[in-house]
Amino acid sequence: MAEVRADDLIMVSVDDHLVEPPDMFDEVMPERWRDRAPRIIRTKEGADVWTFEGSIIPNIGLNAVAGRPREEYGIEPTAFDEMRPGCWDVDARVKDMDAGGVLGSMCFPSFPGFSGRLFAATEDKDLALAVLRAYNDWHVDAWCGTHPGRFIPMGLPVLWDAELAADEVRRLAAKGVHSVTFTENPATLGYPSFHSDHWDPLWRALCDTGTVLSIHLGSSGQLAVTAPDAPIDVMITLQPMNICQAAADLLWSRVIKEFPDIRIALSEGGTGWIPYFLDRLDRTYDMHHLWTGQDFGGRRPSDVFRDHFLTCFIADPVGVNLRHDIGIDNIAWECDYPHSDSSWPHAPEELARVAARYDVPREDLDKITYRNAMRWYSYDPFAHTPEAEASVAELRARAAGHDVAVRSFDTGRFERTRKGADLGKLARQATA
Amino acid sequence: MAEVRADDLIMVSVDDHLVEPPDMFDEVMPERWRDRAPRIIRTKEGADVWTFEGSIIPNIGLNAVAGRPREEYGIEPTAFDEMRPGCWDVDARVKDMDAGGVLGSMCFPSFPGFSGRLFAATEDKDLALAVLRAYNDWHVDAWCGTHPGRFIPMGLPVLWDAELAADEVRRLAAKGVHSVTFTENPATLGYPSFHSDHWDPLWRALCDTGTVLSIHLGSSGQLAVTAPDAPIDVMITLQPMNICQAAADLLWSRVIKEFPDIRIALSEGGTGWIPYFLDRLDRTYDMHHLWTGQDFGGRRPSDVFRDHFLTCFIADPVGVNLRHDIGIDNIAWECDYPHSDSSWPHAPEELARVAARYDVPREDLDKITYRNAMRWYSYDPFAHTPEAEASVAELRARAAGHDVAVRSFDTGRFERTRKGADLGKLARQATA
Repeated sequence: MAEVRADDLIMVSVDDHLVEPPDMFDEVMPERWRDRAPRIIRTKEGADVWTFEGSIIPNIGLNAVAGRPREEYGIEPTAFDEMRPGCWDVDARVKDMDAGGVLGSMCFPSFPGFSGRLFAATEDKDLALAVLRAYNDWHVDAWCGTHPGRFIPMGLPVLWDAELAADEVRRLAAKGVHSVTFTENPATLGYPSFHSDHWDPLWRALCDTGTVLSIHLGSSGQLAVTAPDAPIDVMITLQPMNICQAAADLLWSRVIKEFPDIRIALSEGGTGWIPYFLDRLDRTYDMHHLWTGQDFGGRRPSDVFRDHFLTCFIADPVGVNLRHDIGIDNIAWECDYPHSDSSWPHAPEELARVAARYDVPREDLDKITYRNAMRWYSYDPFAHTPEAEASVAELRARAAGHDVAVRSFDTGRFERTRKGADLGKLARQATA
Repeated sequence: MAEVRADDLIMVSVDDHLVEPPDMFDEVMPERWRDRAPRIIRTKEGADVWTFEGSIIPNIGLNAVAGRPREEYGIEPTAFDEMRPGCWDVDARVKDMDAGGVLGSMCFPSFPGFSGRLFAATEDKDLALAVLRAYNDWHVDAWCGTHPGRFIPMGLPVLWDAELAADEVRRLAAKGVHSVTFTENPATLGYPSFHSDHWDPLWRALCDTGTVLSIHLGSSGQLAVTAPDAPIDVMITLQPMNICQAAADLLWSRVIKEFPDIRIALSEGGTGWIPYFLDRLDRTYDMHHLWTGQDFGGRRPSDVFRDHFLTCFIADPVGVNLRHDIGIDNIAWECDYPHSDSSWPHAPEELARVAARYDVPREDLDKITYRNAMRWYSYDPFAHTPEAEASVAELRARAAGHDVAVRSFDTGRFERTRKGADLGKLARQATA
């Protein structure tokens, strides 16, 4: 059996989240709109919530629980001073990435919605565009730019206008951005579906600039809620696989056929169900294409899928085992910090155990943990951090110089470590 | 590699469909209601449709395409004389089962909906109950009873009254019935969800009588439609996996916890996604149960799943490969005759090829093709057909005495065979 050491891995996460800091619009909002920018207010109950054009958007508790004991998880809105600073402070975030052994990270938004729905719902479209561009500039210049090479930059899309969406993709590409978020299903948000030609300007801009459409679970605005009185466990279980709807919708759509260079990431969608899904695509084609008229120029849907889709997982033993049925070039690991499904700071140990169980060679593992992320997102962390200094062990040695909270293996609770603590040892003991 | 011969298999299908014949209510409907029984009328366009209390219910074309070339598949309503007689004539059905090598079959309804929604929507509940009981009596006595041992009988549920539903389960059990259909999600039909105590009388009756709740995909009334203009391939691809919503809904519900003997079949739900789903259940439990309060008495959700759920597949190589991650006692094959996803009459050859690829031992294969179906549904075909005469080859030898249509390996079209044709040879050649 191949020995897999968590210490030796290089980890790039294609799905994390940031909680927007209160001062984010101070520098980036044009003078004309400055007093109408979203801002933070504190409620009577002590929660910090965003307000914008009369709307109130709470910080959902589950979205920022990294570093808290699981008994305290919950969906209640929360205040910045109750959150781990790494949620919203980029310097603290990089320290937490070091402690978790994570070299690079792509961070999805919080209060605007994964695909910027909040701005799309704004009546004053000039204001909406100004805020969206300000958000993107802040994300690229302030969040990602402060620590060069540590983040994969990503933009929010202009959902309400396909031409403006294309312009923003091109503007961002000129700033080095190769990822834009999008919704699982524009039709559920009241826009034309993936089957209309409405979005063609956007698809063209993505292809021209080598930008990946990063579709995050939950971005359709439709949660997998079976009944009003269903326990929340039902929704949590179903949420990732729900993205199969977007995958099927896009795979059979004209987008794939008319834009051969388009690439799509199924963010937080999991991987273990993909081999079944590919079989199902092929069987649907075999049994039905003669009357439905589907035509991929003689190719199989499963092969077409591999040309266009990146699949992403947090912890998914079945997917690691079946990596070659998915496509070894189509899988990327993600950390999901600071959400409740994240294994931070023990994710390298968790993945190493799974890799050992299925005897995954280092070459495959490297593709899954960083090489695929680099290629799909045109991301080169080694221009800033030499590869020899990028491993989990190297980053954790750096983190040991700070004061970071990790889970105590004695109490099961997160505690502040002393400077100089061996984080790798702590993580190994905590996950043994 | 284990040699797997399709000829040697014994095939029991836990999911087929019948199209109700026009005369079905003639004998079974009580005198008082006879003139209000559902009946067939022919439309101007030449389709045969059911009519009941002012409603018109077409026979959906895709539901009865067995034996037609795939170019002719479609959703248009159809007439009885355009259908293969095996769709609605039980004697012809048994001949088709023989030709397909299928020993036993459980047949879901067509015009009332998989869970009898049509009768639940009927205003006159006395009439509704009379029709539903007449339907069940016809199904058990006429459809299944004409060929003893060839069918697993199944009843329609009384959706609109949990006490009456319990009574009907007990009445049917006394007639030897151990399966009742149900909806994927009563909440979407306007009834209390799986999380209320509304259905407790029904659950109790199921446990008392050893009756399986057979939940067929599509029975929630909600198709997996992503957008009005999405190609139908999207819906066909997604439909099976959609049942994961029912599986999650029930697994986390009080039903499982308060009725430890309850058993549920996920009919036509596929199996390849189950290992991922079980991982996801366990991870959801690990990460969240301390705040959501889920408690299975210290057991893992994946183990609880295996106590209660039977998974069912038509053709699913990933599921066959991962059979031990699913649970070798939790998988049953299905034929899906006469629907468009069926491989009839070549299903034994299709399964044998997959079994050979994954080196499945005969013991595992027997569980998948008939032993699990017999145990879960308290079904004993060998009381009527000796085991030595039940194999695919034996049944096909019997079918060779008839005049049956199978796909020609020359033209790809279905043609009538001459009496005495070697159906096994035809099937092997057609699937080579």
